[in-house]
This record gives sequence, C-alpha cells and structure tokens, in this order.
Amino acid sequence: MTGSVTGSTTGAAAEPIGGRPIRVALLGCGTVGTQIVRLLTEQADELAARIGTPVELVGIAVRRADRHREVPAELLTTDAAALVARDDVDVVVEVVGGIEPTREWLLTALRAGKSVVTANKALLAEHAGDLFTAADASGADLYFEAAVAGAIPLLRPLRESLAGDRITRVMGIVNGTTNFILSAMDETGAGYAETLDEAARLGYAEADPTADVDGYDAAAKAAILASLSFHTRVTMGDVHREGISAVTPADVAAARGLGRTIKLLAICERVEAADGTASVAVRVHPAMIPRSHPLAGVGGAFNAVFVEAEAAGQLMFYGQGAGGAPTASAVLGDLVAVARNRVVGGRGPRESAYADLAVRPIAQASTRYHISLDVADRAGVLAAVAAVFAEHEVSISAVRQEGRTSDASLVIVTHSAEDAALRSTVDKIAGLPFVNRVVSVMRVEGEDQ
Amino acid sequence: MTGSVTGSTTGAAAEPIGGRPIRVALLGCGTVGTQIVRLLTEQADELAARIGTPVELVGIAVRRADRHREVPAELLTTDAAALVARDDVDVVVEVVGGIEPTREWLLTALRAGKSVVTANKALLAEHAGDLFTAADASGADLYFEAAVAGAIPLLRPLRESLAGDRITRVMGIVNGTTNFILSAMDETGAGYAETLDEAARLGYAEADPTADVDGYDAAAKAAILASLSFHTRVTMGDVHREGISAVTPADVAAARGLGRTIKLLAICERVEAADGTASVAVRVHPAMIPRSHPLAGVGGAFNAVFVEAEAAGQLMFYGQGAGGAPTASAVLGDLVAVARNRVVGGRGPRESAYADLAVRPIAQASTRYHISLDVADRAGVLAAVAAVFAEHEVSISAVRQEGRTSDASLVIVTHSAEDAALRSTVDKIAGLPFVNRVVSVMRVEGEDQ
Repeated sequence: MTGSVTGSTTGAAAEPIGGRPIRVALLGCGTVGTQIVRLLTEQADELAARIGTPVELVGIAVRRADRHREVPAELLTTDAAALVARDDVDVVVEVVGGIEPTREWLLTALRAGKSVVTANKALLAEHAGDLFTAADASGADLYFEAAVAGAIPLLRPLRESLAGDRITRVMGIVNGTTNFILSAMDETGAGYAETLDEAARLGYAEADPTADVDGYDAAAKAAILASLSFHTRVTMGDVHREGISAVTPADVAAARGLGRTIKLLAICERVEAADGTASVAVRVHPAMIPRSHPLAGVGGAFNAVFVEAEAAGQLMFYGQGAGGAPTASAVLGDLVAVARNRVVGGRGPRESAYADLAVRPIAQASTRYHISLDVADRAGVLAAVAAVFAEHEVSISAVRQEGRTSDASLVIVTHSAEDAALRSTVDKIAGLPFVNRVVSVMRVEGEDQ
Repeated sequence: MTGSVTGSTTGAAAEPIGGRPIRVALLGCGTVGTQIVRLLTEQADELAARIGTPVELVGIAVRRADRHREVPAELLTTDAAALVARDDVDVVVEVVGGIEPTREWLLTALRAGKSVVTANKALLAEHAGDLFTAADASGADLYFEAAVAGAIPLLRPLRESLAGDRITRVMGIVNGTTNFILSAMDETGAGYAETLDEAARLGYAEADPTADVDGYDAAAKAAILASLSFHTRVTMGDVHREGISAVTPADVAAARGLGRTIKLLAICERVEAADGTASVAVRVHPAMIPRSHPLAGVGGAFNAVFVEAEAAGQLMFYGQGAGGAPTASAVLGDLVAVARNRVVGGRGPRESAYADLAVRPIAQASTRYHISLDVADRAGVLAAVAAVFAEHEVSISAVRQEGRTSDASLVIVTHSAEDAALRSTVDKIAGLPFVNRVVSVMRVEGEDQ
C-alpha cells in the first residue's frame, strides 16, 4: 500500500511507506519555492540520511510555466489541482499564499491522506480548523512553521516543547516591513508617508503595502500564535488590529523623550478573571517600549518573540522573519518531520483546541498608555486633566509638563487601565477648553504594570 | 497488548496504548522532580487533553523515602531498578543525574520498549550512542530537552526545526554558575576565588563547584549540541575544555578597556577544508566578546545560545537555563511528546549520526586572541614583539601601548589564528628579555574574523 491513505476516518497515522522515496508536490515557485527546489537538490543526500529515505520532487505547480528557467521544466505544471490529486504524491508543500483556491487544494490533499506543509499564514488564520479537521480524519500531518516569523523555530516550541507548561503571554515583532519603517522614522525623524516611500524604493515594502502597514499580516500571525499557545481556535476576526499609518513624528519624538521607541507588536495574553475563568486577548498595535527592552534593538528583517510560561518563565526567540532561504529552511524542517512520520508510521501533533477559551474584546484589554497633550499654559490645567483621569478610574503613573511661549505640552503615562476607560478619558479631555490638541495616544508595553 | 513492546528488534514504533492512561515512573525527586510531581498534579486535566489520555504517576524512586513529605508516600520506593522493570510502566522520567547506576536503569527501560525522558547531560555526553541504540532496537523514544539550557526549547529546534538546513555554528552561554561569577567579577573587579565564595554563599555555586567552574558541565552540553547539530557522535573527550579559575581581575580589566566582557562560551563549529572535507570543532573556554554583542547582556541564571545555519541565517534562543520549575517545563514538554507518540503509535526522531564527521583537535582551531604583556618601556619593544608574531604567521589586528614609570603595557589583538601557532608565539614572547610578564592571553569571539 502506498502512503496515500484514502477514506480512512480513524484518525490513525498513515502506514509506513517502506523503502521507496517520499514524493513531494510543490505548489508555488517564487522566492521561497525556488530556494526549496535548490535546497532539495543540493542537500538531497543529507535529507535522505535524516529521513531514512530520499525525497523526490514529482511536480511544481506555477501560474506561468515559461517563467521558471531555474527549475527542471519537466516538473512544471499550471494545473495545481491535478498535481495535488495525483496518486503518487505523499506530501504537498504550499508556498503560493492566499485563501482561494489554495484552501481547496490543501483540503483535497489532506482528505486524501497527503501530509501538508504550508507557509500560508492568511489561510491558517482563517481556516486552520477546517484544515486540521481534514488532517485528523485521514491521519495526515499539517505543519506550518514557516507561516510565522520565517526561519525562527517558534511554532514547534509552542506546539511541542511547551506542551507540558501553561503559556501566559506571547509578545513579538513579527512583521519586517513595519519594523523597517518604524526604525527608520525613529532614526530620521521623518514622517510615515515619506518613510514608506523610501521602504518601497529599497524593496522593504510591497507595491501595495496594506497587508503589512495596516497590521493584517501581523494579525494573521497573532491568531496562529494565540491558537497554539492557548489551545483555542483564534481567527483573524478575533484579533484587535491597528496599523502604523497613524504614527506621527510627534509620537516618535515623544517616545524618544521618554527613553522609549515605537514598535508594531503582536500580543497574545491569557487573562484570568477573579473567579478563575480564563480568556484570551489578542491584539496588534504600535506601542512604546523602553529602549532597554530586548525587542527595542530588533531591526530590519529580523523578528523576535517573547514567550512567558508559568514554569519555564521568560523565553525569547530571535532570527530572520522573512526571505527566500530562511523561509525555505523552516519549510524543509517541516518536510523532514512529516517525511519521518511517514517512514516510521507515526504522525505529528494534531490540532489542540480543547481549552476553547473566550476571546476578550479589546475594550477590556488592560495596558499602560502614554498621552501627549498640547494645552494652554496656565495654572490649574494639570489639576483639571488629572480630575478627568480620576473620574474614569484611570490611575496616573507619571506626568511631565513643559512650557513654551503661550502653550505647553503635557505628557501623561498611566498605570494599567482598560482600553474602554482610557478611550472615554481621552474623549473627555479632548473637549476641555484649554486643551488645544491631543497630540498622541499610544500604548506602553514591556514595563511593569 | 500493553505499551511495553519487549524484545522487538524491528525499530518500528511501539503500538498504540488505546484509551488507558500513560504510566510514568519518576527517578529522582529533588528540586526538579518535586516540580514535575507538582505540575503533573496541577495540570493533570490539561496534560490529558493535550495527550489524548491521562498521565498516571505509578512510582517515584528516591534515595531516602522519609525525606519526601511533599509527594504521595505510597508512590515512593528506594528500588529504582525494580521500578524501571515494572510491567505497568510506559515512560521513565529520569532526573537523578550521574552516570552509574542511572545508565543501567535507562538502558533497561529502553530495551524493554519504555520511552525515556531525561535531563542527564553527563550521561548523554558520554553514552548517548548506547542509549540511542537501545531505543532504536525496541522502538522506544529518547528525549532530553532539559539536559541543555534548562527551559529553553533548543534541542527540539536543532533536532527537528533545522533538520532541513545545514547548521554551521552554535555558540552560547550554557552554565549559570560561571556566568554569575564572571558577571560579578566584571562588576566589582574582585578576584576569582573571592567571587566564587560569594557565589557559593548566595547559592549560585555548589559546595564542590568543579563541574561548573572547570567547564565540565558546559562541555557535556557542548557535546550534546554538537552531536545534534552536526549529525555526528561527539562525546566529552572530544571537547576542548578550559574553566574560568584562571581568569584574573587583570583579564577582566583588559577586556573592559577594550569595550569587551568575558563569558564562558560553548562553541561548536563545522569547518570545511579547502578540499571540501568537513570536520567539527567543539570547545568550551572563557572568551572576550564585545559589550554590544547580545550574549554580553545575558546575566545570572539566564542562558542564551546563538545558532547559525546556511539557509536560516542567525538564530538566538534565550531563557532560564536552570531551576526546578523551568527544567520541569522542559521535561514535561518531552513527556507530552513521548506520550502522544504512544497514543498514535508513532515515534520521535532517532539518533542522527550519519555524517560521522572527524573532530578537529584544538591546536587546529582558529580564533582571534587578545594578549596583554607587561614590558620594559624602551624603544624597539613593539618591533621585536611584532617580529615574533610575523615569524609564526599570526597576523596582528590592533596594538595598544601604554607607558607607566619604567614599565609599559602592550595589548595586542590578533586576526584569526590557529591555536598551536598562537601558543608558540606566546611561549617565545614570554622568553624575550624585555618582556616582564604575559599578563593575559584570551580568545576573542563574536566579532568578524
């Protein structure tokens, strides 16, 4: 019998393949796919030794077959659906991206007992549940290390190494484009639009940068991280998302003045209520962090993720978050894992969503805030502003007042407060007669609450 | 049939256990063992959900049964051999340490098809080959994430996530005691002996600190890291080992003067000769690193490990390297993995030693060196010293000369040079008439060569 177990609904592992090669279909041959083909060729002997049997690439699905001179022409096909359905495919590796028709191809593969390795964060953030259900029914593996933080081994540690612990918080920089832009704004003092243009010119931003700068990419990754960390299905719609387009030079300067810098963070938290009920909060937004924080020094294409667990304490993972070769490394690590499982007849971890925790709305999320106001320079302003904070039960941690000619700037950092309370506070303050302008409102992370 | 597959020599995975609990024997109940028992109890429901069946602790082997009031008395036994041999044990978790009789217990377990989770770095650094052979013969799993860098998920990434890549270098701080001592010497300027006493008083050093300060602990971890990274059996005897007892306040001051700090590093390198032949070099020694290097800021009980791979690039892993709860977290992650394998009838990765690379002697290792000399303050000294370097083909990168009353200090930093050439150079320089004393010779890491 071959590696394709069809129609089984036992959830048992696929049968061992014996001594024949593991046959792989590759969907997509762009930057990452090309590197996968290169590494499969260059490291063929090593991969065979590690797996216990050779890997054979049996087909590569691309959009236009005449544009891929760097891979063997006889492997190319424009019919991905037919490639996926072939009887002689054990594993489907997908680096096409997008939701449809990719979702349908991967479901077809999984239902037929073919293991899937994918780097498709958008698809996983929306449809991981369907994919896992299909994998579980046929006993196939579903691996996706490359979907979050590129080459950094992060999902396997969350899914496996920390499986005996309770993860409480994940906080990281998981998008390189926004990290490049915010770092550049911090260095040059330039505005957002201008810096985005520069990033596009240097190849750090796409022609349509929406997915990156509006936080969709980071939100998809946050959904995946939260699902694995908290054993709960979390999808894109559960993630509170704010991009970086509203970050101003004034915000950047305000952060700098307080020894902080601004980063776009993906944050996944397990929150325990007084009655012991746990829930999860997942959000992506720019935030000020202290310059002394390890995440503050993470620049350019690098990603870094902090993980806090009850027994393990604080862990950090750092490495390249994107790029052809780094992403291909993560894909091939997964390919070796699913191939080994085929060889010995086992399988990797299934979906773990038993905890099924509720997702808290952003209004209930608690963080510290930095608020910068442009106010009239007269006595009693601070007292009036402080009264509004007190009224909304938002506690003030620090205040700095700086006079200019006729106006003054007032900077307030709060203790941890609920988002909803803070929004109401700011709304009311904006309407006070001596407040000229709310210059900046930004969350503060990476400090004691 | 139960989960214990006896006598099989096929290397196939153990059979699924069906719906009954996974039965665990714990060897050792000190700091780590106590935390394992606590977490197994407190997180019983979560572990069962993640594994697919409950975990049942069926026995705890200790040296003296009357000293463990914190665990259920009916589980305690002083006969570890009998506990390991029990028919109703699926998994043996070992946190006793030491080579014998632990080795015999674990071999017995593995030969009987019982999976083993161990934190025993000394045993693995000497006898991993025997243990893997026994595991392979019966189809049992052997996991040991807790043996290196405590809670940090490091071995699973090396063994699995990077299995599709080629690791070229691993460099890390993997011993907390020496890291505490070196950090304190750097901060206070105090001597080694005095700082060691202080470390012992604060509980950071054992009564007999030999294993830590002489580098045995780090060397064992280096052997394990090198074995996994380079698919080659590397044992303690292959690791060049220098401890920290010879580090002087003068070394520390010299490092500081050059913007560096001293750390005990474990370094595993894959070296490729001109003819393409690869070999590995594994060493543990104190080295100067730039204060700007991420490892320079790693303090106290924390460990951090850099990994470089051809496709993935540079990765860093950071977290708590020791302590009861962090180590227990790593052990339980492994326990969940081997238990899951039992539930689905699969197994984890076996030993991968196919590459079987040669180990290079330290004399052939190339690093940069920092040499500090106490010399007579007269003309021509630098020229004469430089001539000795040239004669041994050791290239000088930087020189600093500082005059005092009648003597002067001469600090030389070399380009990358072979250890043997450097030793000969220093021997000859020490014999020059105007060289009063060789104050410090230390390797420099973490900079371009």
